Amino acid sequence: MFNDINEEMRQRNLRGIVVFGDTTLGNPDLTYVVGGNLARGGYYIKRFNHEPLLVTSNLDLGTARKLHRVKRISTFTEWGLEKLTRKHGRANAYPYLLLMILKKEGIQGKVALYGRNDLALGVRLVDQLRKLGVKVTGESSPTVLEAARETKSPAEIDELQRTAGKTAKVVHSVMDVLRNMKRKRGRLHLGNRPATVGAVKKLIARELAMVDLVAPEGTIFAIGASGADPHNAGNPGDPIKHGKLVVFDIFPQAESGYWFDLTRSFVVGRADQKARHLFETVSDAQNASLDFLREGVSGDEAMDRACRVIEQRGYRTVREIFQGKAKGIPSGFTHSLGHGVGLTIGERPYLTFLSKDPLRKSQVVTVEPGVYLPRYGGVRIEDTVVITSRGVSYLAKVEKELELA
Amino acid sequence: MFNDINEEMRQRNLRGIVVFGDTTLGNPDLTYVVGGNLARGGYYIKRFNHEPLLVTSNLDLGTARKLHRVKRISTFTEWGLEKLTRKHGRANAYPYLLLMILKKEGIQGKVALYGRNDLALGVRLVDQLRKLGVKVTGESSPTVLEAARETKSPAEIDELQRTAGKTAKVVHSVMDVLRNMKRKRGRLHLGNRPATVGAVKKLIARELAMVDLVAPEGTIFAIGASGADPHNAGNPGDPIKHGKLVVFDIFPQAESGYWFDLTRSFVVGRADQKARHLFETVSDAQNASLDFLREGVSGDEAMDRACRVIEQRGYRTVREIFQGKAKGIPSGFTHSLGHGVGLTIGERPYLTFLSKDPLRKSQVVTVEPGVYLPRYGGVRIEDTVVITSRGVSYLAKVEKELELA
Repeated sequence: MFNDINEEMRQRNLRGIVVFGDTTLGNPDLTYVVGGNLARGGYYIKRFNHEPLLVTSNLDLGTARKLHRVKRISTFTEWGLEKLTRKHGRANAYPYLLLMILKKEGIQGKVALYGRNDLALGVRLVDQLRKLGVKVTGESSPTVLEAARETKSPAEIDELQRTAGKTAKVVHSVMDVLRNMKRKRGRLHLGNRPATVGAVKKLIARELAMVDLVAPEGTIFAIGASGADPHNAGNPGDPIKHGKLVVFDIFPQAESGYWFDLTRSFVVGRADQKARHLFETVSDAQNASLDFLREGVSGDEAMDRACRVIEQRGYRTVREIFQGKAKGIPSGFTHSLGHGVGLTIGERPYLTFLSKDPLRKSQVVTVEPGVYLPRYGGVRIEDTVVITSRGVSYLAKVEKELELA
Repeated sequence: MFNDINEEMRQRNLRGIVVFGDTTLGNPDLTYVVGGNLARGGYYIKRFNHEPLLVTSNLDLGTARKLHRVKRISTFTEWGLEKLTRKHGRANAYPYLLLMILKKEGIQGKVALYGRNDLALGVRLVDQLRKLGVKVTGESSPTVLEAARETKSPAEIDELQRTAGKTAKVVHSVMDVLRNMKRKRGRLHLGNRPATVGAVKKLIARELAMVDLVAPEGTIFAIGASGADPHNAGNPGDPIKHGKLVVFDIFPQAESGYWFDLTRSFVVGRADQKARHLFETVSDAQNASLDFLREGVSGDEAMDRACRVIEQRGYRTVREIFQGKAKGIPSGFTHSLGHGVGLTIGERPYLTFLSKDPLRKSQVVTVEPGVYLPRYGGVRIEDTVVITSRGVSYLAKVEKELELA
């Protein structure tokens, strides 16, 4: 949580941190510390045990004040950026500016720099700061910011829940439309158009727009064999046909920067035995891990439970790889159980065989087992839940039905 | 252009470059060198004067091959990432992996690292590589990749043009709807709903969805006083009223990662004298800079021409600041003339008073003067054009009309 930043700094003996970027877009750490969106980004500087400072462009000053996260706000102009540019040149102005701010804030000792920034530029900045005497240090994962962002505040959970509710609305609308498709000249139709994956995706995008969500990474709507590849987003030309398995994985982002992640798998019409067996296997695997998850257990155990259920039903899982029994598996449960969701769509904590740390209250994770059969199709069922002391709490409730009929 | 990378390396005496990231989303350099989207990202390694190598996850291998940009592709597993993880630990596996690849590729001497990545993690990676003997260097802007991306290939211009055409379609649809609003009980309506900024934004989002575009940074639709702040995206509750100036700035992104940028300003119904004067001023300023722009001229000159037109009509401009006559201006033309557009919505070249370099053929820039009057409103007119040897060529043609009636 946000309030953990100071403690995380203490543990790493960091006397100061700097989070920066030329925009908050695609910069989750900066979005997090400034408390929202700043079109031109800025520099967030925090001395250990002290109130942070935010330096923004003149244009973003008003917006920054409205975000209410940082109380001490000033502008690049007030810090004399233009003067520094004239004196040291454009490429050198920022290191000198930062040096000045760090001094004025009384930050001595180890400092870490954050924000998603072009690495070649970042390396130059760090090298210059070091030349000027600043003790810049790198970090391995989790960084201070990753560690803080890993557990969510009540306000963050509220925002994730709002995004979840909107996503659920979209999924319900799409399912309703799919349920009510009419057959014309032997083909299913969406209104007057043949029902294809492409047409459904347009519908999804329109429904997302209606609830003010965007899907910067797209949406997966894969039918039949294409659903057997967890990364296949679906072929626009594929017709929607009765009885064929669909994997519908939706991961939209709200204006606030928070994401949500949900997957349902189903067939339109009636399912055959094979689809039914896949669906029940994945559903049971998901329930086994959801029933198990709570504060204090580890991700690898949850992963293990899902794998055991799936293996008992005769499918292969990545457990074989971690046991050293196989180098890869051609079918079955080929990925990991889940990942954190917040200001990114994939962050700590992860639910994999490498996740040994006990899960903590207010972490938000996906639980998404899947089983894939090449040339046939796949089933993945995914919910995003909050870890609590007694179990998990769903961010959105969307029915899990095999047959849309 | 992409083919400039080798020459840009030569100029900087770089023996190798590495572009990486855990996804191509929000990572324009990585998108650029791999030629499209890879969900799990990868490492692109190029030795000076040699064919590049791409190392991806197993899951993205198929996608990477379909992108056809890099011919030599392998996976992390083939390079022994799992073994390195067991030997050196998770946090140290990547530096050792990279060291191994650099050696195998025969890269000795200066190396630069690119990609938008968390800086604290990047700094650790660089420090470790340096400890292992790799000569990692930083860069100031423009980096090799920024320099290459600054001019666009015919294929890139085609893609920008497709995105432009789709954007134009959206703008036309929205304008048609605005033209045909009905008055009910004294208020303009969109269908059965009162015409508010929020309702228009939903319409815009829906129309974007129909043409497979997303707007990760939102859309500006600001009416009246809110349009006087170039960064104000518009207040959802504001009613659309006859005669009030609207600034409609749309900047969507296509699935390919390419953006487009267009602004129109207008009133629904009839404009008063003040609005007309603003509109004509900005329109003339835009034409003055568009007529001037071509290969070989510099951005600061284009900026200067726009400022002169605006000043002649009695408004203030940022020229005063650059001349040292003012510290800031409260109204008038308060920003710069334009910026490059490509895999980001703001990149080189910039059209500002600091832009002394001659513009080059196949650069793609916005030309967007604006004049803002606090408490009244603003006018900005923006087109995105390609610099050619004889002038500019528009990526999209959208009429510039003051009155939608």
